[in-house]
Amino acid sequence: MISKAKVKFIKSLQLKKYRKEEQSFIVEGSKGVEELLRSSFEVQWVAATASFLHRYEENLVKRRIEFVEANEKELSTMGTFLTNEGALAIATTKQNASSEIRTEFALVLDDIRDPGNLGTIIRTADWYGIKSIIASKETADFYNPKVINASMGSFCRVNVYYTDLVQYLTDVSLPIFGAFLNGSNVHATDFGKSGFIVVGNEAQGISPAIQSLVKIPITIAKRGGAESLNASIATAIILDNVFRLQE
Amino acid sequence: MISKAKVKFIKSLQLKKYRKEEQSFIVEGSKGVEELLRSSFEVQWVAATASFLHRYEENLVKRRIEFVEANEKELSTMGTFLTNEGALAIATTKQNASSEIRTEFALVLDDIRDPGNLGTIIRTADWYGIKSIIASKETADFYNPKVINASMGSFCRVNVYYTDLVQYLTDVSLPIFGAFLNGSNVHATDFGKSGFIVVGNEAQGISPAIQSLVKIPITIAKRGGAESLNASIATAIILDNVFRLQE
Repeated sequence: MISKAKVKFIKSLQLKKYRKEEQSFIVEGSKGVEELLRSSFEVQWVAATASFLHRYEENLVKRRIEFVEANEKELSTMGTFLTNEGALAIATTKQNASSEIRTEFALVLDDIRDPGNLGTIIRTADWYGIKSIIASKETADFYNPKVINASMGSFCRVNVYYTDLVQYLTDVSLPIFGAFLNGSNVHATDFGKSGFIVVGNEAQGISPAIQSLVKIPITIAKRGGAESLNASIATAIILDNVFRLQE
Repeated sequence: MISKAKVKFIKSLQLKKYRKEEQSFIVEGSKGVEELLRSSFEVQWVAATASFLHRYEENLVKRRIEFVEANEKELSTMGTFLTNEGALAIATTKQNASSEIRTEFALVLDDIRDPGNLGTIIRTADWYGIKSIIASKETADFYNPKVINASMGSFCRVNVYYTDLVQYLTDVSLPIFGAFLNGSNVHATDFGKSGFIVVGNEAQGISPAIQSLVKIPITIAKRGGAESLNASIATAIILDNVFRLQE
């Protein structure tokens, strides 16, 4: 049986304010919790079905992580989503920190507001081996349950550093690429071996202050009628073009 | 003032059952309604802000489309989403119909269940000039407000035909490509000038019965840790690789 206080605590973590105060966040679904248990995150508590616990009980006991059995209905009642396949965990958030980008590509997100888009971008970045995302302070919160969920476990392998983008990009020396509606064709762009790829807000694109810092404006070639692409779609297409050159 | 009966009718169109019975669907937001008014859909009724009507009143009067002024709060109360920027319309659904695919590419969706994914796929297809999508009967409903909304107006330019995929694909002669985790590298695939591109369900991928009909299995090259890509992301990357060869 899960105490009412615990359920209340879990519910509170749907809000950024409480995640910050408690330095805690929730991970929902067995896929996400499995990845969490393999990651460097500190895990505080796990609620899971008997079949999930059967596989992970030894690991949890050894690491002295508190756990409790729950059925799928209890798990989804506690959580954010309509359904929960198998597990829910509480883990400790990490400090907002960056590592220097020298010999790799990093994404720069200029106000990606939709948590689903951010989660999908994290998942796609992870697919292409990108480890660092630099995000404006207005970008959706990394620890939002919708971000964690859409990342499908990739939140464990990709770091998002929130900072003032103008200041950050002013100080870097690697090339800065940016997605525009009128740049050079992404299919013909030489991305080299390292750099920053700036993706703009869903509705406004890249903000004027950041635009002036972008050295190489790029565009995804269009043939049809749509005016624009979803931000996570545009990011994925650019990354595929960056990394096809590395094969 | 919008009548209670009208509000009730609009609300009912959030459910597939009533959309089918009434052969009607809703379009929300000024961008979507603008595209709707330029399309071949029959428009029944428009509610919009004064500034939207200022631009479209002449058009609406000429076409004898009933319209009413409403503020943004009334529009979002009537609609599906938290906010509505400017307009809401009721339009008539079209018959489920296909045109023959001969000299072009078409997408085939094998159970895309998430309306947001379907809408984003329609938008991306439209970007690349794809006009036809063939979908399994279990794929999300084209007229779901979340599909219409995520398509950002592209629902006006892309036709989705729901059918039995096994039967459909058995009868076609163009090459059938399909996204798998172990096919040939999409970067090295010769897509030719026409064909079908099959995308599988978000969790299960392409179903076994369809797998055996796919002639050319393809894969998006992976470098990092993510196990898979979101279905709409995978579709976009494949389409970008198909059409870069046509430049």
